[in-house]
Amino acid sequence: MDSINKRNGNNDEPKGAQAPKRAPLRQFAPLMVAMVGLPGRGKSLMAKRLSRYLNYTGDVCKVYDISDYRRKHIKTYASHEIFRADNLPAWRIRQQSFREALEEAASWLQEPNHHVAILDGPNVSRAQREEIYDLVYCQLGFRVMFIECVCEDPVLLERNFKEILQYSADYCDMATEEALKDLTQKMAHYKAQYESPSLGSHWELPCPMIKVLDSGEGGVVAHGVVGTKESKILGYISTPKPIQQTLYFSRHGESEFNVLGKIGGDAPLSPRGRMYAQSLAKHIQALNLPSLQVWTSTLQRTKATSAHINAPKQHLPELDEIYSGDCENLTYEELQERFPRELARRDHEKLKYRYPQGESYLDVMRRVVPVLNQLECESNVLTISHQAVLRCILAYFLDTPIEEVPYIHVPLHTIIKITLQGYNYNMETVKMPIDCVDTNRAKPLNCSEGRTREEALKTLPAHYDSVASLNLTYCT
Amino acid sequence: MDSINKRNGNNDEPKGAQAPKRAPLRQFAPLMVAMVGLPGRGKSLMAKRLSRYLNYTGDVCKVYDISDYRRKHIKTYASHEIFRADNLPAWRIRQQSFREALEEAASWLQEPNHHVAILDGPNVSRAQREEIYDLVYCQLGFRVMFIECVCEDPVLLERNFKEILQYSADYCDMATEEALKDLTQKMAHYKAQYESPSLGSHWELPCPMIKVLDSGEGGVVAHGVVGTKESKILGYISTPKPIQQTLYFSRHGESEFNVLGKIGGDAPLSPRGRMYAQSLAKHIQALNLPSLQVWTSTLQRTKATSAHINAPKQHLPELDEIYSGDCENLTYEELQERFPRELARRDHEKLKYRYPQGESYLDVMRRVVPVLNQLECESNVLTISHQAVLRCILAYFLDTPIEEVPYIHVPLHTIIKITLQGYNYNMETVKMPIDCVDTNRAKPLNCSEGRTREEALKTLPAHYDSVASLNLTYCT
Repeated sequence: MDSINKRNGNNDEPKGAQAPKRAPLRQFAPLMVAMVGLPGRGKSLMAKRLSRYLNYTGDVCKVYDISDYRRKHIKTYASHEIFRADNLPAWRIRQQSFREALEEAASWLQEPNHHVAILDGPNVSRAQREEIYDLVYCQLGFRVMFIECVCEDPVLLERNFKEILQYSADYCDMATEEALKDLTQKMAHYKAQYESPSLGSHWELPCPMIKVLDSGEGGVVAHGVVGTKESKILGYISTPKPIQQTLYFSRHGESEFNVLGKIGGDAPLSPRGRMYAQSLAKHIQALNLPSLQVWTSTLQRTKATSAHINAPKQHLPELDEIYSGDCENLTYEELQERFPRELARRDHEKLKYRYPQGESYLDVMRRVVPVLNQLECESNVLTISHQAVLRCILAYFLDTPIEEVPYIHVPLHTIIKITLQGYNYNMETVKMPIDCVDTNRAKPLNCSEGRTREEALKTLPAHYDSVASLNLTYCT
Repeated sequence: MDSINKRNGNNDEPKGAQAPKRAPLRQFAPLMVAMVGLPGRGKSLMAKRLSRYLNYTGDVCKVYDISDYRRKHIKTYASHEIFRADNLPAWRIRQQSFREALEEAASWLQEPNHHVAILDGPNVSRAQREEIYDLVYCQLGFRVMFIECVCEDPVLLERNFKEILQYSADYCDMATEEALKDLTQKMAHYKAQYESPSLGSHWELPCPMIKVLDSGEGGVVAHGVVGTKESKILGYISTPKPIQQTLYFSRHGESEFNVLGKIGGDAPLSPRGRMYAQSLAKHIQALNLPSLQVWTSTLQRTKATSAHINAPKQHLPELDEIYSGDCENLTYEELQERFPRELARRDHEKLKYRYPQGESYLDVMRRVVPVLNQLECESNVLTISHQAVLRCILAYFLDTPIEEVPYIHVPLHTIIKITLQGYNYNMETVKMPIDCVDTNRAKPLNCSEGRTREEALKTLPAHYDSVASLNLTYCT
């Protein structure tokens, strides 16, 4: 055994004739993604979207924007002059900002359960890219990947520029015309300093490199992509996503089960739910949205809610309500009676709690990912789905902290509109004037298994006890 | 409302100035992937691997190999002459085979819950590619994507050729030298007919196209990738995977819980388990595997099993045993006593059954995917894990039908070696001569909730009842 020990050693990186090209045992190490590209090429929007996607799908990710560090040193942005290559004092500050961002990103990556750091900035010089590689790969033993955004399409460039003028902290106090002139000159300075990485066997570093052309519209070129995180990222960024984007969401109209306070099932709409379906169609059609599409779940209450809308429709099982397994078709009162321990456990940890033989919020979050990926590539889609599913979908676009997902307020008879503004989504809601029950049950104060029935049902909103009383109400 | 109805219409593909570039409402339609490339470029291996990955991750996929259809018409392969462009009768047969494969793939895609068909073949002419596009995209309204395999690396080409000579049905009755000569001429004929698709804005069809260079070692170029399946496929195929590959697997040595018949937990090895750890190390080290790596779970019984192996190690939570939630640390006898209904349900549908607050086999299959993706890119990795997890991992490489996964026989104290041969993996096992308990409980005949204790425990293998009796056994 001794001779074997001596031959193989026990360090993490065996050397020798038969060692593989890349260092072993880094397959699951944290990853630094460094953006490369001129200003206005869509780097920051891509970084932000990628971070949102990775965080939602379980890879804890954080973006480090180098310009935020520059703004710590140069509090008030004066002009493009600070980006000139021959402005040495400013160059030093920019270099320092680059290094601070890189180092903070690297220390963040060293903490447990942090998976991907994105260094967002131009990183236009080969020396900067080598510095990233040296620190992260050689010194820390982590993984590194570069993404270069190249954009030649004048239409895309103009839109990117408009976004920067509107949303960049540098230009918030500058008149539009002046800002546009300044941005153009800033870009010229960066162009003069730009050492675009070449690809294939000429790529300067032994790590993956992806070139994205015209925000994906012109395709992608990838070299040396190894690792599951890297290939996941390549798959994600290769799909072009709109710069201007508006999406609409609604729950189904009030269902007969909503009225009775029952969960799950496949009930038809209540009379008021049918009124909402009419009203929703009127509202949406009046917007005259180009290329409107409607996506619903496969359950009859969402299909019926979409019935009067004149647009192509798709019915997707991914949009079906959270499956409550053995607890389907029960009211909360019945749940408390038959499964008091289950209800208490769910109240205690609603995100992770799985109904017996059913789903948890985490399960729903996972199952909606393909729909989210597709929604990100669309505009003017109206998604008609269910309370829990819409919580999971809205959480994605609104960057809701994961533990808050099961408590997002998504009331019935309300149209939700989200619009991409800068790198974030803005939400607006329109409540339709058609009465409906409230289905939002807040987290009870007491979530222990030994609580009383009263404590368990304290936050339960009112609902009708039977269809009979409901019909009476409508007749009066 | 009428005017709105008239303006928008209700067909699936609204036309007009504001219609998007691609047809809407196909986002979730089935997908045909057509391979493109000369013989020996790695198309079939890629098609087979992609199909394995898609099927495992929930996209039901089937490969249609055009040469299988040709062999139906030309039963005995004579020589390369059938691939000459000027051999008109043979050309007709090849064209007919192409069409039959395409049509069968297309009808398969039209059946419910079929997601991706891969048309494997050279598809070297632009006319063939247009025919695929016309049928699948224009007539059926599905999605199409092309993957071209280009290979210039002489080392890779030689290895690919060797694989074809060894495994192709065409060459099984031909002497190696003659076969090599024939294959070279076959390739020359295809080269003469090859219209390689150009990329970027010159790509001939309005659908995604991926060019893979040197089996991924030279990178990938992708154009027009839209759709979640397409971007998933791009992510998968961009990572280079070895042509020659051997992987080793073992369960941990017998644990104290194995001896007691308990499930789950984090028990140490039994004395016999510790003997296995020694024996496993001896066996593995004697193989002198270049760049050997060991991956274990994070539980002490797999770490202890790897203790004597002199190689770099990684401990991955993805490799931890199936989590049995409320049933952790119980024997089957205790399970039957405390959760008879749960045990019956599990026996009835072991694949989907989730332990209360625990995992199902399907959950484990999902969680091991990142490890599987990485394992596919490695050779000489010894994975030390657990019964259920190894069932899920082996099922991937061995293409086990999903319903059989929970019953794959993975005994203790056995080293499993899998080797890529052609497009499939071959499995060999070595049973180490160290006694251990049997942990394989076959599906009982009676899985109903009303069965007796005896019926539930009928297939339970023998185990010791207490550590006391165990110690006695070892002392004698």
